[in-house]
Amino acid sequence: MNRIAVLTSGGDAPGMNACIRAVVRGGIYHGLEVIGVRRGYSGLVAGDVFSLSSHSVSNSIQRGGTMLKSARSPEFLTAEGRKKAYEQLIEIGAQALIVIGGNGTFQGALHFFEEHQFPVIGVPGTIDNDLSGTDYTIGYDTAVNTALEAIDKIRDTADSHERIFLIEVMGRDSGYIALQSGLAGGAEMIMVPEIMLSTSEIIQTLKQRKTGSKSSSIIIVAEGEQKNTAARLADQIRHQIDFEFDIRVTTLGHIQRGGSPSAQDRLLGSRLGLGALEGLLMGKKNVMVGLVNHQLTYTPLKEAIEQKKPIHRDLLRMIEILRV
Amino acid sequence: MNRIAVLTSGGDAPGMNACIRAVVRGGIYHGLEVIGVRRGYSGLVAGDVFSLSSHSVSNSIQRGGTMLKSARSPEFLTAEGRKKAYEQLIEIGAQALIVIGGNGTFQGALHFFEEHQFPVIGVPGTIDNDLSGTDYTIGYDTAVNTALEAIDKIRDTADSHERIFLIEVMGRDSGYIALQSGLAGGAEMIMVPEIMLSTSEIIQTLKQRKTGSKSSSIIIVAEGEQKNTAARLADQIRHQIDFEFDIRVTTLGHIQRGGSPSAQDRLLGSRLGLGALEGLLMGKKNVMVGLVNHQLTYTPLKEAIEQKKPIHRDLLRMIEILRV
Amino acid sequence: MNRIAVLTSGGDAPGMNACIRAVVRGGIYHGLEVIGVRRGYSGLVAGDVFSLSSHSVSNSIQRGGTMLKSARSPEFLTAEGRKKAYEQLIEIGAQALIVIGGNGTFQGALHFFEEHQFPVIGVPGTIDNDLSGTDYTIGYDTAVNTALEAIDKIRDTADSHERIFLIEVMGRDSGYIALQSGLAGGAEMIMVPEIMLSTSEIIQTLKQRKTGSKSSSIIIVAEGEQKNTAARLADQIRHQIDFEFDIRVTTLGHIQRGGSPSAQDRLLGSRLGLGALEGLLMGKKNVMVGLVNHQLTYTPLKEAIEQKKPIHRDLLRMIEILRV
Amino acid sequence: MNRIAVLTSGGDAPGMNACIRAVVRGGIYHGLEVIGVRRGYSGLVAGDVFSLSSHSVSNSIQRGGTMLKSARSPEFLTAEGRKKAYEQLIEIGAQALIVIGGNGTFQGALHFFEEHQFPVIGVPGTIDNDLSGTDYTIGYDTAVNTALEAIDKIRDTADSHERIFLIEVMGRDSGYIALQSGLAGGAEMIMVPEIMLSTSEIIQTLKQRKTGSKSSSIIIVAEGEQKNTAARLADQIRHQIDFEFDIRVTTLGHIQRGGSPSAQDRLLGSRLGLGALEGLLMGKKNVMVGLVNHQLTYTPLKEAIEQKKPIHRDLLRMIEILRV
Repeated sequence: MNRIAVLTSGGDAPGMNACIRAVVRGGIYHGLEVIGVRRGYSGLVAGDVFSLSSHSVSNSIQRGGTMLKSARSPEFLTAEGRKKAYEQLIEIGAQALIVIGGNGTFQGALHFFEEHQFPVIGVPGTIDNDLSGTDYTIGYDTAVNTALEAIDKIRDTADSHERIFLIEVMGRDSGYIALQSGLAGGAEMIMVPEIMLSTSEIIQTLKQRKTGSKSSSIIIVAEGEQKNTAARLADQIRHQIDFEFDIRVTTLGHIQRGGSPSAQDRLLGSRLGLGALEGLLMGKKNVMVGLVNHQLTYTPLKEAIEQKKPIHRDLLRMIEILRV
Repeated sequence: MNRIAVLTSGGDAPGMNACIRAVVRGGIYHGLEVIGVRRGYSGLVAGDVFSLSSHSVSNSIQRGGTMLKSARSPEFLTAEGRKKAYEQLIEIGAQALIVIGGNGTFQGALHFFEEHQFPVIGVPGTIDNDLSGTDYTIGYDTAVNTALEAIDKIRDTADSHERIFLIEVMGRDSGYIALQSGLAGGAEMIMVPEIMLSTSEIIQTLKQRKTGSKSSSIIIVAEGEQKNTAARLADQIRHQIDFEFDIRVTTLGHIQRGGSPSAQDRLLGSRLGLGALEGLLMGKKNVMVGLVNHQLTYTPLKEAIEQKKPIHRDLLRMIEILRV
Repeated sequence: MNRIAVLTSGGDAPGMNACIRAVVRGGIYHGLEVIGVRRGYSGLVAGDVFSLSSHSVSNSIQRGGTMLKSARSPEFLTAEGRKKAYEQLIEIGAQALIVIGGNGTFQGALHFFEEHQFPVIGVPGTIDNDLSGTDYTIGYDTAVNTALEAIDKIRDTADSHERIFLIEVMGRDSGYIALQSGLAGGAEMIMVPEIMLSTSEIIQTLKQRKTGSKSSSIIIVAEGEQKNTAARLADQIRHQIDFEFDIRVTTLGHIQRGGSPSAQDRLLGSRLGLGALEGLLMGKKNVMVGLVNHQLTYTPLKEAIEQKKPIHRDLLRMIEILRV
Repeated sequence: MNRIAVLTSGGDAPGMNACIRAVVRGGIYHGLEVIGVRRGYSGLVAGDVFSLSSHSVSNSIQRGGTMLKSARSPEFLTAEGRKKAYEQLIEIGAQALIVIGGNGTFQGALHFFEEHQFPVIGVPGTIDNDLSGTDYTIGYDTAVNTALEAIDKIRDTADSHERIFLIEVMGRDSGYIALQSGLAGGAEMIMVPEIMLSTSEIIQTLKQRKTGSKSSSIIIVAEGEQKNTAARLADQIRHQIDFEFDIRVTTLGHIQRGGSPSAQDRLLGSRLGLGALEGLLMGKKNVMVGLVNHQLTYTPLKEAIEQKKPIHRDLLRMIEILRV
C-alpha cells in the first residue's frame, strides 16, 4: 500500500481536522501518500482531489469544521455514482479509503465496499455520539461543552427572572447530548427520544418545585425527529398548567457543531485517525475504528450501523436524585 | 443622606452585579447604608428589601445575571402601585433610589419622580445599547462578544458545508448588537431595524458572491419588532432565488443575556454604579448616569428615554467594503 | 446510618463542588443528613462544621474551587490530631466520612481509619490524574483544557515570531497534563517525569525542524520535582545550540487549578460523589471510589495510594509521529 | 496612488489580522493593489513581499497573531538598512507604506520618513495601550480580557485556600493592563509603574483585611522594567510581615498576547486599517491613525511617540473604594 484517500462526510464535527492531520502525518510516517477528497462522496464522484503534505495540516488541530469540506451526495446513493467514485479512486492510484462521518456515511461506505471490494475504513465523526462500537464519537465532547456553556448562560437569566426555560439541544434519535449537558448543567428535567416524560409528569415536578420554593427550572429537550420539539412541549405545558409560571424556549441550533475542539476531541480524533491508518496497514477493511474502554477496536461497519447504542440509564436516575 | 435603595429591573444584563457592588461599596465608603430591593419595582411595591453589606457583594463581580433579581411589575405601571412603592421607601428610611435597567425602567422612574419628588437616578443596564446619554450600556459588550463567539462557531459549519446562514441576534428596535457582532464576525450582510435591505438586494449580493466563488455567506439579522424575522427572511429568499443555495437559519436567543461579564462591562458597571451614588451625594436626581467620551455625564431621564440613539452609519459602510 | 460528614483537602480542583453537591443531594434522597467540614482535616480537628441543605449546594455545579475550602493540617499528621478529629465526628454524631482529595488526603484517611476504625471513603479530586483505581480524577479534564487554551494562545505568538516556546505545565510526579495537553495542542516535544528527553535529543529535533523549514516549535514540560524546570532546560538548550533560535519560557502556574469545570468533570464529580455516598450505604469503607472503563469501582485506599499509575506510552509514540 | 505595502512589526497583538484584512479589502475597494511584507522591517529590507488578494485575508478576522509575521530588525535600525528598505519599496512600485505596531515600530517609521520622504502611516497595534493619539490600541481589549479570565481562575484557588496571590501581568512602562484587569477582576491592590505602593502600605492593607476577616487577597502587579517584579515583591512582603499569610506568585506571561481577538479589537483593527488606507488616499503621511472619542484622528508620529499617555487616576481611586 502506498497511496490512500481520505474524506469527511455528513455533518461537520469538531476534531475532524485533528483526525485528518493524524491520517496525513501517520501516512507520511509510514511512507504513504495521502490524497484528500473535497466535499465528501460528492467530491469523490467528481474527482475533486489533491495531495496532502505535512504542511497542509499544520495549524489545523485547533480549528473547528473540516478542512476537506463536506456535502450531501445524491449521486453516491446510486450504484452508478458509487461506480464513478470507484473509478476515480483507481485513476488516482488509491488503494484504500478512509471516511470520517456518521451513520449515513458508513451506510454509503458499506454499499461501496460490497459492490467494489475496495478497502474502506470508517472513523466515527459526529457530535451525536449515536454509533455503537466506540464509547465516544469525534465532536461529541465539544458539543456537550458548547451546550453546557449555553445552559450556564441561560441559568443566569432563569435565576434572575425566576423562569422556566426549555432548552432544545441537538440529537435526532439520540439523547446523549441532552443527557450529559443537562446533568452537567444542573438541569431539573431532561427529555430524550429514548425516554419521553409525559406533560403531566413535567407539570407535577414543576408544581413540587414551586411548593419547595425553587424559583427557576431548566428542562433540556433533545430535538428528536420532528421540528420545534421544545416549542411544542412549552405550548402543551402552558395549556395544562394551573398556576403561574413564566416559560421561555430557546433552541441552541448550529452553534453546537462548531468551535475549537476540546482536548478530548483532539485526542480522540488523533488516535482514531492514526488507528484507521494503521488498521489499513494491518489489513483491516470494511470496519469502523473506535475506542472502547480506552482501547482501539475495529467493528464491522454493518454492526456499527445496525446496533443501537443504549442510553446510560444510571445518568437518567442521577437527574432525579440531584434535583432534590 | 444616610440610606439609599437600589434595584435592577427589566431584562438582566451582564455587569449588573458589578454595578450593584459599586453602589454598595461606594455607599459604605461614603458612610451610607445601602438597601437592596428584590425583583425590581415589583419587590419595591411589596417591600421585599434587605440590607447590603460589603460581604453581600463579595465574589459577585464575575457573575452574570443580577443578584437582586428582576421581574415585571404591572402594579408599578399604576399610580397606586407607585404610591405604595413610595411608602415603602419612606418606611425603610431611604432618601434616594438607584434603578439599574433600560428604557421601560426609566419610564417608570420618571413617573415615580414626577409624582413623589423622590430622588431617583438611573443606570443604563441593558444589552441593547439603545439608550442615548451614554456611549455604551452595561451588558452590551458582553452580549456582542457572546454573539460573536456564536458567529465564529457557525462559520466553521458554514464553510465546511458551503452554506448561507441567517443568524438572528437580539435587538428589538436597535441594530447595535447585529452591527458590531456582524462586522467583527466578518458577516457579509447585516439587517438592522434602522436600515432594512430588500430581499432583491440580498439575492443580488448572494449571486455576485457565488459568481466570485465565495462559497459561504453569513447574514446577521436583528430580531426587530416581530417574531422569527430571520426565518421569514429565509423563506422569502428561498422563494425568489433562481440558483442553488443551501440556506439555514439559527436564532441565538437567550444565551446573549447571560455569561460572565467582559472586562469592559465590569468596568462600566463599576464606574456607573459609583457615578450614580456620588451623583446622588452631589444632589443629582431624575437623571441617568452615563459615560460619554470616557467622562461621566448626567442626562435628564426624559431626554435619555426620548432621544433615539442613531446607528453608526460608518460601520454599515464598512460592512460593504470589507465583504469584497 | 443517618448522618455523614464530607470535606475537601489538598489542592482544589474544578468539579469538587459538583461532587459535594452529589453527596449532599444523594444524602437527602437517601434520608441522611450531610455535615460539611470547612478547611479539610484542619477544620475537622477544630470542629468547624455546618449542616448542608439542598439549597446550600444550589448554583454551585458550575463553580471552580471548593465551597468547603481546603487547607494544610499539620495537626492531622499526628496521632493526637487524628484523635481530636475522631472525637469531633463522634460529637456531631457522624457515622462516616467522605474525603475528596488526592494522594496526601488518602494517606491521612488511611491512618485515621486504621487508628479509629471510623468508616471513611475517598473520592479522587486532583488535577494531576496521578491516582490508580480510577481512569480520571476530578479536575483533570478541566486542567488539560485550560492548559490547552493557553498553548493555543501561545502558538499564535510562536508562529508570528517564529520562536521556540517552552511551556511548563503542572504535574509534580506525573506527566498526564503535559502529555494530553501537549498532544492536543500539537506540541512538537513533551518532557514528562516518567521519560525525560536529553538536551541533545531536543536540539537534534529542533535542528531537523529548522532544516525542514518548520519555523516555530512548542515544547511542553511537566514541572517535575524541582522548581523552574522549563527555565533550566531553556538555559541548557541556549548553551549547547549552535544555530540561531529565539527561545522563550512561560509557566502556566495556578490558572490550571481554577475555572468553571468541564462537562466531564461535572459528570465525574457527580457520579463519584453519589458513588461514595451509596458505597457507604452498601457498607464500603476504607476505599477510594473510582470510575474504570465507565463503571464505578471501589479500591482499597492502600492500593490506590501505593500503585503508580503508568503513563500512556502509545500517546508518547503519537507525539513523535504527529510532529513529522 | 495604485500600490501600497503593509507590514506588522514588534510584538504581535490580537486584531492585527482584522487590520490587515481591512487594509487589503479597503485597498481593493478603492482600486489599489496591496503588497504584504513578511516579518516586519526585516522582511522589507530583504524584499520578502507578496501580493495580497481578498481571498488571502478570508477567514482571518478571528485569528490571533499576525499572518504577516513579525521580527526584530537590527538592520532597519541603521540608515543603510532603511535605505535598502526604501529601494525595495521603489522596486515593487509601492507608493506608500502602512506599518502596524507599537512605539519602536513608529520610531523606525519616523526615521524612515525623515530620510526618504516616503509616505508612511502608522497603526497602533500593541497590547500595552501605551500610545498617545488613540484611546485604545489594537490588542489591548483582548489582553485585558485574557488577564481577567486568568484572575477569575486564580480567585477560585485563592478563595478555596484563603491565600494572597500576586499576579504579574504585562506592561513594561504602562500600567493599563494591570489597572483595568485588576479593577474588573475585583483585585484588592494594584501596582503599576506610574504609581508604586510601598511594601509597608501593602502590608498595612493586608493586615486590615485580615482583621476584617477577608480571607483572600489578589494583588495585580505590572511587570515593569525589571524581571520578576511580583516575585521580588512577594519576598519583601514575606520578610516584613509579622502575621501568618500564605503568599503565592504567578506570572501570566505570553498567553496575554494570543487568542482570538475580542469584538472591540476586531472592530478597532478594521476601523484603523481602513482609516490608515483612506488617510493615505487623502494625502496623510508621517502620522499615526487613532480613535479618540470614537472619531478617527491622525497624529504626527513624533507626537504619538513622545507624549506619555497618562494613567486613569480615577480608576486607581476606584480600586481603593471597591475593596472596602
